[in-house]
Amino acid sequence: MLNKKILIIGGYGFLGCNILKWADDNAVDLEFTIISSVRSMGSHEKFACVKEEFFGDFGDELFLKSAFLNKEYDYVFHCLTATTPVNSNASVIRDIESNLVNTIKLLELVKSLNSVLIFFSSGGAIYGNNSSITHSEVDTPNPISSYGIVKNTIEHYIKMYNYLFGLKYLILRVSNPYGFFHKSKTQGLINVAIAKCLKNEPIEVWGDGENVKDYIFAGDIPPIIFSILDEPNVNKTLNIGSGRGTSINKILGIVKQINPTLEVCYKDVKQHDVRDFVLNIKLIENVARLTSLEEGIKKTYDWVEKNFKT
Amino acid sequence: MLNKKILIIGGYGFLGCNILKWADDNAVDLEFTIISSVRSMGSHEKFACVKEEFFGDFGDELFLKSAFLNKEYDYVFHCLTATTPVNSNASVIRDIESNLVNTIKLLELVKSLNSVLIFFSSGGAIYGNNSSITHSEVDTPNPISSYGIVKNTIEHYIKMYNYLFGLKYLILRVSNPYGFFHKSKTQGLINVAIAKCLKNEPIEVWGDGENVKDYIFAGDIPPIIFSILDEPNVNKTLNIGSGRGTSINKILGIVKQINPTLEVCYKDVKQHDVRDFVLNIKLIENVARLTSLEEGIKKTYDWVEKNFKT
Repeated sequence: MLNKKILIIGGYGFLGCNILKWADDNAVDLEFTIISSVRSMGSHEKFACVKEEFFGDFGDELFLKSAFLNKEYDYVFHCLTATTPVNSNASVIRDIESNLVNTIKLLELVKSLNSVLIFFSSGGAIYGNNSSITHSEVDTPNPISSYGIVKNTIEHYIKMYNYLFGLKYLILRVSNPYGFFHKSKTQGLINVAIAKCLKNEPIEVWGDGENVKDYIFAGDIPPIIFSILDEPNVNKTLNIGSGRGTSINKILGIVKQINPTLEVCYKDVKQHDVRDFVLNIKLIENVARLTSLEEGIKKTYDWVEKNFKT
Repeated sequence: MLNKKILIIGGYGFLGCNILKWADDNAVDLEFTIISSVRSMGSHEKFACVKEEFFGDFGDELFLKSAFLNKEYDYVFHCLTATTPVNSNASVIRDIESNLVNTIKLLELVKSLNSVLIFFSSGGAIYGNNSSITHSEVDTPNPISSYGIVKNTIEHYIKMYNYLFGLKYLILRVSNPYGFFHKSKTQGLINVAIAKCLKNEPIEVWGDGENVKDYIFAGDIPPIIFSILDEPNVNKTLNIGSGRGTSINKILGIVKQINPTLEVCYKDVKQHDVRDFVLNIKLIENVARLTSLEEGIKKTYDWVEKNFKT
């Protein structure tokens, strides 16, 4: 993995920043170009590995083309998403237009290039309400949110562009990441709980808090990705998670050990989220060095306290 | 199945006309309302069972709403499709906008109604390039055309609207229908072969003609549907086909027995169609009375000769 050129769409988002931080911390020989929304212009973190930035609307074909003009990327990382599992159902058509249609425009652009497209899909929302709790990559998707349906549909189109035009891809079905650079105020239990804790606000839990999900420290993801890229994994779909299920109550217990002031309010369950899921990570476990939840949550708490405390 | 009110979206299309003819021929107590494109206004066939017609653009929400104003339908049949497996890949975004987004508008309209939505999906394109040739409803979809991906995505959204809002549905994965009222000049081997034959034009076959598909006489479909609607099949997904695989060469051989002048040209294979498939029809076989291919093709030939010979 030497001297590679990488374009990250959504580069100043949660996962993008974790990738860039990892590249800086490890001084790897990678050169990054970033596509990000104008909202992040000026306010984003700075990384030495970033050589070029394009701020604009991902759905604007001329803008998108400008990032490819006279450039050759070894990898195109697509980790931009305009919705969440929870808010996607409120406006399905907006979800389709902003995530699906805009990604088709990207596929049309990269289909004839030699770049490998790395698509950040969803490890929870795609599998949805399947009968088993643990999900392998070959399981039949059964999404119950527009977010999950759109991710699943994008995966199908990527495979179609591979079939028709030879587009090379890697689909990463990432479970629930938490950690540094997380910005959403509503999405991502661990970061939301830490932020609430530091602001002395109660956290709302939908349901009894006993449902389990697969949480992964975001800082663990970049080394997994760059190990996979070295391997002959092109045109594969891979789960990226911890392979362990942890309940909301267990998570909040760990946060409370760090800061006992955390207050929890239980509310009626919302219907449009997946209740329980754990990813089968057999295909990546030989390259996954996973931070324990206790350590990852403590690191995250300290980072948020240092960077965002109001 | 007495005194039911049915709205058919795409009512003057191929399957719609077969349903209406069956209702007229069997004098069943059904009342139909039709939504059809303005293109078919004035030129469509007439059926006694049709009580009301709306001609307009399915994607126009105000027009669509007008068909539901002060009306209650027991069933809403959605058999409108703006693309085919072959032409859908040429403009993926148009395919998404015209079929997927417009169907979401329909789901938003019917989600709070008491009607059962009957969605005509695809028996071939959805399964796509799976390893087996025979497909059951539980098989993992692997579509390789935009047409198949969009049908699969619509199925997921219908199930999501069922999960979130209790929308009642029946998804019918129909294989390759042929028969009366077929209008496409490029889609549907049997009808295209008969039309070419009657116009003394050669038919082009992509590939060696040995790939098998599942052909069903369109006149066999309505009695299957109305048997299923009587049963407790709500919220199910069902294959509708013959359960038999027949090669293109075998089909053309049957047409040649009727009219030996048929000329066949073999061309290089196109990549974007499914090579071989047969539907597993176990779930409907007790209500399926299937016309043999020889009889169905002869009936179709005679009907086309009588109705469309130039």
